[in-house]
Amino acid sequence: MNVTELARAARAAAGPLSRSSAEVRNAALAAMAAGLRDRAEQIYAANREDLAAAAAEGLDAPLAARLSFDARKLDGLLEGLAALAALPDPVGRLQLRTELAPGLVLERAACPLGVVGVVFESRPDALVQISSLCLKSGNACLLKGGREALRTNRALFAAIRAATAAAGIPADWIALLETREDVSAMLACDRDIDLLVPRGSNAFVRHIQENTRIPVMGHSSGLCHLYVDASADVAMAVRIAVDAKTQAPSTCNSIETLLVHEAAAPAFLPALAAAMAEKGVELRGDAAARAIVPSMNPATDADWDEEYLGLVLSVRVVPSLDEAVAHANAHGSHHTDAIVAEDRAAAERFLAAVDSADVFWNCSTRFADGFRFGLGAEVGISTGKLHARGPVGLEGLTTYKWILRGSGQTVAPFVSGEERFTHRALPLDGGSADA
Amino acid sequence: MNVTELARAARAAAGPLSRSSAEVRNAALAAMAAGLRDRAEQIYAANREDLAAAAAEGLDAPLAARLSFDARKLDGLLEGLAALAALPDPVGRLQLRTELAPGLVLERAACPLGVVGVVFESRPDALVQISSLCLKSGNACLLKGGREALRTNRALFAAIRAATAAAGIPADWIALLETREDVSAMLACDRDIDLLVPRGSNAFVRHIQENTRIPVMGHSSGLCHLYVDASADVAMAVRIAVDAKTQAPSTCNSIETLLVHEAAAPAFLPALAAAMAEKGVELRGDAAARAIVPSMNPATDADWDEEYLGLVLSVRVVPSLDEAVAHANAHGSHHTDAIVAEDRAAAERFLAAVDSADVFWNCSTRFADGFRFGLGAEVGISTGKLHARGPVGLEGLTTYKWILRGSGQTVAPFVSGEERFTHRALPLDGGSADA
Repeated sequence: MNVTELARAARAAAGPLSRSSAEVRNAALAAMAAGLRDRAEQIYAANREDLAAAAAEGLDAPLAARLSFDARKLDGLLEGLAALAALPDPVGRLQLRTELAPGLVLERAACPLGVVGVVFESRPDALVQISSLCLKSGNACLLKGGREALRTNRALFAAIRAATAAAGIPADWIALLETREDVSAMLACDRDIDLLVPRGSNAFVRHIQENTRIPVMGHSSGLCHLYVDASADVAMAVRIAVDAKTQAPSTCNSIETLLVHEAAAPAFLPALAAAMAEKGVELRGDAAARAIVPSMNPATDADWDEEYLGLVLSVRVVPSLDEAVAHANAHGSHHTDAIVAEDRAAAERFLAAVDSADVFWNCSTRFADGFRFGLGAEVGISTGKLHARGPVGLEGLTTYKWILRGSGQTVAPFVSGEERFTHRALPLDGGSADA
Repeated sequence: MNVTELARAARAAAGPLSRSSAEVRNAALAAMAAGLRDRAEQIYAANREDLAAAAAEGLDAPLAARLSFDARKLDGLLEGLAALAALPDPVGRLQLRTELAPGLVLERAACPLGVVGVVFESRPDALVQISSLCLKSGNACLLKGGREALRTNRALFAAIRAATAAAGIPADWIALLETREDVSAMLACDRDIDLLVPRGSNAFVRHIQENTRIPVMGHSSGLCHLYVDASADVAMAVRIAVDAKTQAPSTCNSIETLLVHEAAAPAFLPALAAAMAEKGVELRGDAAARAIVPSMNPATDADWDEEYLGLVLSVRVVPSLDEAVAHANAHGSHHTDAIVAEDRAAAERFLAAVDSADVFWNCSTRFADGFRFGLGAEVGISTGKLHARGPVGLEGLTTYKWILRGSGQTVAPFVSGEERFTHRALPLDGGSADA
């Protein structure tokens, strides 16, 4: 099947999938886990081929670590599948229940989006995580992984498709796309795909947005800030800065720019410079920062807009909390920004004024993550404001329907005034309108 | 100011507006009401000029009714403003509260989107309704109304801007656009506008979507269906069909196509034809329908995809409920579709399988409306699935932020296993993590 046909088949599968019971979907998650375990050796063998091919092309160590799929990664995934199956069913959950008039009851109930297209990076484990989130939330999916992981992805996909089909899910609920041309073809399937989730660079997300009519939930870059307030505890600020910069420098929730209040800078910056030097981090400071720590390299204007994804940190001294907020709002990617402060009022002002998905006080930006937030897993981290914002878990893969059940009501008597709306809120857990 | 400057000024106003208290915003709604009352004569005079100009261009009666702004309409708006002020504050509402670890508490709290651009039709009262919804939900807005209502809109806008500024809202929170060129310029303001709500034809909404990077919540056409099941009560089905077609034929929640099960058709169609003839509705039937009611005009394939917005109804006989569902999903606009059935299981099957924002059982499609749903008012009816679906009230004008408050936590000890996440759900109404 070509991509258009795969999308149409996914749409056809999405109907029965959306109406399947939580029991069926959870059993299919268990079947998915069993299928992956059964075919583990085939999957590892495919992964060894991918690794060998990548090595021949000269892959670096971080990519090799992301690309490899071994027993440890499989164990983690199986644990994740069991945890996902145990989560409450996101489908059918009542969000609102109102008696509009006697015998006329409105409900708003969560339902699957339908068909979701996801383009993700080199980690093959992402294929299992994303497809399982889609299955749990009753969505069909078209998946395109990294080119380097193609053999591994094919093996994972075959295991998942066979196991879930045997568990009663229409086989076409999942499709694997393999090429860039497939992705281009997918962008035109606006009748059969309800949501695209591109994970990658800012430029990649923007390219997708500009070339499709399908709604896009962008998981784009993370240009995150840490602001050290005048009231900050210096030791805490250094500890958080080191974690936020160095614990995993290539991730989107690591910081790229540190802003420090001019009153805190003389005590804080020398301590920061010492700690960062130990971790091999290059600091690039503005003039005020370099006046305190002359060993910093000078920052240029371009530094405030760059996501280094490595051991570089730009540093700017600001005259006020408001200036820190303005800097983060102007230069950040509205992903995650944090303040270190002892002054609670200052912290709350920062949390309210920074226009980002995640706003943190006295903790590391690295906590911005679906698993760490307790959402089970995430299909991405959205930096947009519509639909879902920040880490997107099961809830972000659902929409809702308004369901109105009557007994023959027409609108005319309500317009004439003969009948009146009651608009009585009803309990979500059953209480009837006639009660 | 040109549109780019208006958008930038609205963005600047949106910050303080988003952080204003519910008391301030509700007082501003009261001031808005008082301001409109105080300037009522000026507004009526402007409206008389609009009506005269439109009459000179030969406006028809329905447009004149929509365009006119008189004491009756003002009274309705003032009532609406008072009701809106009395609604719970949509800003700051906690949606989730979780202890991630001791002393590390995550909250998800509703917040305004920021700046909203709305393009609406000829009714000048829409300007008051939309701007008041934006104000209540803490959003700045750029508004473009119908060309015919420009003088009335200017008078309403001036009253609203002056009254709300006097009540302490930054004056630039609201802007009035006047021309098509203004709308085009607005589409380029993707840094300063967070959401566009175009209200109009399908083609218009699509034009907007294809020419902007700003997220669009389309309020597009309503091609709604009524399906009369084999188990339907014929009298009820006729009554609902008449209301859904004729109570206000030019509205988006009126029906365009009636589907009837072949088992119900012989009893239902003659009764429908008699009732519709009385209302002056032209019926266009497929061959099976015309075999029962030969006086119907023949329907062509194009009829299943046309929103008549007038007294025409296409009629198709279907062999099964599944075929009715397939027809509605293929030809509808995913707005509102209804079933008339005595068989509850059949009804529930229809409600689950039809992929529309509103799915109704034994009542008229005309109930699909924010006010009738008890939402206060609506900024539009979304036929998309992302963010908000169906009637969009205050909630659709908000997003949320993830707020994490800690006491110095870093991620490293959680990764090493030294510390563990607790992921304990906390009550939304206060209970502390340390309790």
